[in-house]
Amino acid sequence: MADKPLGTEVCFCTQCGSPVTTLSPAGDHHLRYVCSECDHVLYENPKIVAGCVPEHDGQILLCKRAIEPRSGYWTVPAGFMELGETVAEAALRETREEACAEVELGSLLAIVNVMRAGQVHVFYRARLPAPEFAVGEESLEVRLVPIDAIQWEDIAFPSITIALREYLRQRSAGTDCVHTETVR
Amino acid sequence: MADKPLGTEVCFCTQCGSPVTTLSPAGDHHLRYVCSECDHVLYENPKIVAGCVPEHDGQILLCKRAIEPRSGYWTVPAGFMELGETVAEAALRETREEACAEVELGSLLAIVNVMRAGQVHVFYRARLPAPEFAVGEESLEVRLVPIDAIQWEDIAFPSITIALREYLRQRSAGTDCVHTETVR
Repeated sequence: MADKPLGTEVCFCTQCGSPVTTLSPAGDHHLRYVCSECDHVLYENPKIVAGCVPEHDGQILLCKRAIEPRSGYWTVPAGFMELGETVAEAALRETREEACAEVELGSLLAIVNVMRAGQVHVFYRARLPAPEFAVGEESLEVRLVPIDAIQWEDIAFPSITIALREYLRQRSAGTDCVHTETVR
Repeated sequence: MADKPLGTEVCFCTQCGSPVTTLSPAGDHHLRYVCSECDHVLYENPKIVAGCVPEHDGQILLCKRAIEPRSGYWTVPAGFMELGETVAEAALRETREEACAEVELGSLLAIVNVMRAGQVHVFYRARLPAPEFAVGEESLEVRLVPIDAIQWEDIAFPSITIALREYLRQRSAGTDCVHTETVR
């Protein structure tokens, strides 16, 4: 077993402010940060990133990232799911925030485990009913890109490449399945 | 906007132990716990629960919960996904821990947003190749239950009922789709 829990380093308890220690609580098979005073256990679990691949008339809505990591590279609308929303609502919200666009979500497209980041990326198919969008505050530029003009080397993250590639592959094949993949 | 972030209440910073305040950081649309001294932001996001519906010869592998919440009620193997594993690996691990069983995962069965708990439950189809299992440490009892003998009123959580019902419905219909549902 490693000598500390995976994920963000924790030094103090969120409940009482005392220093934490690392141990595997009774009945638990994982090392955790546990408060040395009040025994509160500080869990960290994988986060969900929700996004979609919006198509309008043979073109895909792409956003040039304005923030790190990978500022200046291109992505489909996607971001961290929040408490109080469904996965689909998170994908719609991210599309609003990054591209100022209202899309209609379709079926589930892909689930990508992104191991190093401790994330699970969930992508939906989506339809942009009209070419109405704008540059959201986390974007430098937003564009409808014809399928054969996608600059694959400028895509921000492997999971985005996977979602786009799978969207186009299944679009050609006429299938509507959920693709699962793991990025180590 | 609510007066504090959704989720677990946080009083102190994990990084420096100082008291936190609640505010919406620049460029963020959500209220967060932010350290009053070092400005560290303490995010809480939905957690993934991964599980499966294991079938052997027309019977479903069910576990009677030994722990709260809903101790004494029945569930399919499922539990919190951990950092360092894929969703599928989490479902396999939970099946080992709760039912001491090695299953073969099939396709994705259901994604259930469990709003009040801040969780997303992900279920796979699974095959238990041989009737080999035992009572894991989080279970009081583990049983292969014939489909028409499932005691629906004794199922632990709505998401488990949804996964089981959807498994059986698609099994009868001969379909293999991902069902999405939200429990408010």
